[in-house]
Amino acid sequence: MTTLHGLPYGANSTGLRLDPRELLDAHGREIDFGLLDAFAGRSIVSALDFSRDEVVELAKLAALLESTRVEMRKPLDGKIIITAFFEPSTRTRLSFESAIERLDGKVLSVPDGGMTGAAKGESLADIGEMFNTYGDAVVMRHTKTSSCDEIRTNLTLPLINAGNGSGHHPSQALLDWYALLKWRPALSLPSPSEDDRLHLAIIGTPGNMRAVKSFLHVALKLPEAVRRITVISEMADPFGSALRPEVEGSPVPVAVSHDLREHLDDLDVIYMNSIALLGDSYKQLDSKFRLTSASGLSPKTVVMHPLARRGELDTSLDGTDHNLYFAQAAGAVFSRQALLVSVFGRAEWLEDLLAT
Amino acid sequence: MTTLHGLPYGANSTGLRLDPRELLDAHGREIDFGLLDAFAGRSIVSALDFSRDEVVELAKLAALLESTRVEMRKPLDGKIIITAFFEPSTRTRLSFESAIERLDGKVLSVPDGGMTGAAKGESLADIGEMFNTYGDAVVMRHTKTSSCDEIRTNLTLPLINAGNGSGHHPSQALLDWYALLKWRPALSLPSPSEDDRLHLAIIGTPGNMRAVKSFLHVALKLPEAVRRITVISEMADPFGSALRPEVEGSPVPVAVSHDLREHLDDLDVIYMNSIALLGDSYKQLDSKFRLTSASGLSPKTVVMHPLARRGELDTSLDGTDHNLYFAQAAGAVFSRQALLVSVFGRAEWLEDLLAT
Amino acid sequence: MTTLHGLPYGANSTGLRLDPRELLDAHGREIDFGLLDAFAGRSIVSALDFSRDEVVELAKLAALLESTRVEMRKPLDGKIIITAFFEPSTRTRLSFESAIERLDGKVLSVPDGGMTGAAKGESLADIGEMFNTYGDAVVMRHTKTSSCDEIRTNLTLPLINAGNGSGHHPSQALLDWYALLKWRPALSLPSPSEDDRLHLAIIGTPGNMRAVKSFLHVALKLPEAVRRITVISEMADPFGSALRPEVEGSPVPVAVSHDLREHLDDLDVIYMNSIALLGDSYKQLDSKFRLTSASGLSPKTVVMHPLARRGELDTSLDGTDHNLYFAQAAGAVFSRQALLVSVFGRAEWLEDLLAT
Repeated sequence: MTTLHGLPYGANSTGLRLDPRELLDAHGREIDFGLLDAFAGRSIVSALDFSRDEVVELAKLAALLESTRVEMRKPLDGKIIITAFFEPSTRTRLSFESAIERLDGKVLSVPDGGMTGAAKGESLADIGEMFNTYGDAVVMRHTKTSSCDEIRTNLTLPLINAGNGSGHHPSQALLDWYALLKWRPALSLPSPSEDDRLHLAIIGTPGNMRAVKSFLHVALKLPEAVRRITVISEMADPFGSALRPEVEGSPVPVAVSHDLREHLDDLDVIYMNSIALLGDSYKQLDSKFRLTSASGLSPKTVVMHPLARRGELDTSLDGTDHNLYFAQAAGAVFSRQALLVSVFGRAEWLEDLLAT
Repeated sequence: MTTLHGLPYGANSTGLRLDPRELLDAHGREIDFGLLDAFAGRSIVSALDFSRDEVVELAKLAALLESTRVEMRKPLDGKIIITAFFEPSTRTRLSFESAIERLDGKVLSVPDGGMTGAAKGESLADIGEMFNTYGDAVVMRHTKTSSCDEIRTNLTLPLINAGNGSGHHPSQALLDWYALLKWRPALSLPSPSEDDRLHLAIIGTPGNMRAVKSFLHVALKLPEAVRRITVISEMADPFGSALRPEVEGSPVPVAVSHDLREHLDDLDVIYMNSIALLGDSYKQLDSKFRLTSASGLSPKTVVMHPLARRGELDTSLDGTDHNLYFAQAAGAVFSRQALLVSVFGRAEWLEDLLAT
Repeated sequence: MTTLHGLPYGANSTGLRLDPRELLDAHGREIDFGLLDAFAGRSIVSALDFSRDEVVELAKLAALLESTRVEMRKPLDGKIIITAFFEPSTRTRLSFESAIERLDGKVLSVPDGGMTGAAKGESLADIGEMFNTYGDAVVMRHTKTSSCDEIRTNLTLPLINAGNGSGHHPSQALLDWYALLKWRPALSLPSPSEDDRLHLAIIGTPGNMRAVKSFLHVALKLPEAVRRITVISEMADPFGSALRPEVEGSPVPVAVSHDLREHLDDLDVIYMNSIALLGDSYKQLDSKFRLTSASGLSPKTVVMHPLARRGELDTSLDGTDHNLYFAQAAGAVFSRQALLVSVFGRAEWLEDLLAT
């Protein structure tokens, strides 16, 4: 299945390219639809809402969506999804809206919810009440960490949190792991070989960076796939009180280091992000954590980044095999489709596509 | 017909819930489609554009849309509706856009018409000319009271006024009365009993508050349903020169009072709004007109509010049977669908749904 | 084919009205679909990208779209077009979006790309990479002349430039010439009579006004249709170094004049625009180039303007036969449809409509 320009849907222009069929093949082209059924009507607020098996099955459903022709199934037909972005975003909003439109759902878009008229002074509880009769599900981003709780005071529709302040960004974690599982399908199996298991470096402070935190949440649930995590941060405590017990309770060993260079030889994956929330505003990463093609990365290391990037991730890496971040971004639409289709209880509409 | 989350479409989360079937049943499940035919191609600028019978028949059509499965009829198929909001709005814009999308119409959205590029200096007459070839109808909100006249200099498409400065908001009046007629279907009959007839209190100044004014316009046409109107205002003349002759010419007795508390025992409905237009800007209602669960409302009194609210309507009323405002808001999509379907001359496409 | 309000689609409210069937009839209702096939997958950055024959065939396809019922063919079905406006625009964005929706394509809208979140600091190269997996084509406007080159660093989708700084606006030139060819179909034939050939006046500085420049690019390729061009400008060099060689190399004689009044007797067409880009900001035309019904236009002269206008084009001309600008604007949707359908390689889907 190719697009007009000759590339398959989802293909990135440069860097590593991933074939979603390999992930499906690793599982004999079988998906546990019963497990995905359990998403019907659920809200997704945090990556903690996903079990290890749910992450894997959603990735497999995303791979099915990416590698087969699903258009005729119209799996979001008749559904209106409200994309309410009270914190501006282009990338996340558009990838959700593209995901919805490709599957024949409809979008009610609030691209700059923070700025509009009467809503400026309106409580999130009242906005949630309003949304109940306007759509069938809500995708929300907000600057306030408390926003998901507030809107759910009255909201009876399923809510997908697309980023709440320094809180969570669960659909980002899904698409991040979708990229990793496509890149190395063995990681999705019960017992990957020791060679396949990952040493992850995470640059930043998971305690107040929502994408990083959500990525870590899933990593901690995958001890069979992750042999070691090194958090690169200058903060004395990059986890904070909410995250620390979880880190300490996981079978995955987690270390903190101030210097990325000490670990370069052993790293399989470096996960970075450009911004951290400090109080009410965002702060860029220090430039000393900048990665370039001259950073001395091991040949085996791949770099991930949720994008948009600023100076911390140099374009000199774009044309190299360290670049997993373009493939990561290229899977976003399919990963979000898998989540939406499951929340609407329609994953089974796609079951017979496994045979194609 | 229920949604994924188990509530019927249009159901509010708390407060009074209204069953649209009761309104249809009160009329033997018959709708006067001939009367609705007269809306085809019409512009709706003011609530004065509606006759008493048109308000009732549009409410019944809304009830049909709310209580039956209309999706397969696609009554707005092939139609593009331009939602042009030169005054920012979330609630009104989204309810129109949801109404359109549910019925398979398409939306061309101008969410912040006042801010965009060349249009900033463009006349409404020229914008109307532009719209002629871009869509099939226009829903417009604007800060200027003269905006409807100005855009109609060249606009040949039907225009639905969604709020023009201190002027009118006719679709709000329709949905307000849709809520009242669902709540007490006898009000839609030729001769309601004396017990059913309403004493309405209106807090605010109808002369310069468009939602309040439009609500009053309809109330004055329904003497069989309204026994008395009390306007609660501190202004010497809350009507102004344009509205006063109409108030004085109506068979419904209208009084002005400075103190809501004097009337609490007798009121059936309190209608309030949060903002009034003063000159070019909006002013919030004085806090002394604030309603809470401790305001001493009579058990029979219901409260209406077009929302969004600020402090004047306390959330302590949300969980009580005084709360008609959530049900009022929950009917907005269906009431606007009834209007749009009629303006496109397609109400009859739904006629056989009456038998289901 | 008429709309609800009794006018054909695309009809302007006043001024000259054009019948698209006359253009098709002048060519025996034949279109060179083989030539249009060559647009499949192409990017359109400049009016230089069009040959003379392509301008004519696209105009004929637009005429087919304007004069027949194409809805059932759904020629953009399954296609998502990203409308990315990093410079605000209402008119151009909405006409593209209307064009897309009428043909059953879907829109991913970025109405104010310059303002949104992370994208604020993101490179156009990264935005192009993002777009690769979100849609099937991109329509972009940007304040930077270099923007098309920048986004194409990674963008693999076809790009339609909807205005890049002081650069180009090729789809505007297409719709401008669509209006002229409908107005005088003989101009689209190999050898128009001497009486049909045009003397064009262009008010402004083509060197830094993109709409004017793109209009001129096409005019210079049509020597059989254009007998003379007079550029009315106070600038010593209204072309600049990039455009001058092309002007000097064309068989069409081009003169520069400071005074429109000297040429009024002989002009067939006056093309004007309201704004010129100077550095990073826009400058309005001097008021001395203002046209009104008292400007002494020859009865044969028509006025064109890409709109929006400011004071330079007086509304006293709207109701006269000098007004070609409303008809010009009214063809925008169809001209853009012709381009989009061709870029998706689907013009042939419409071939049998020629027989109707």
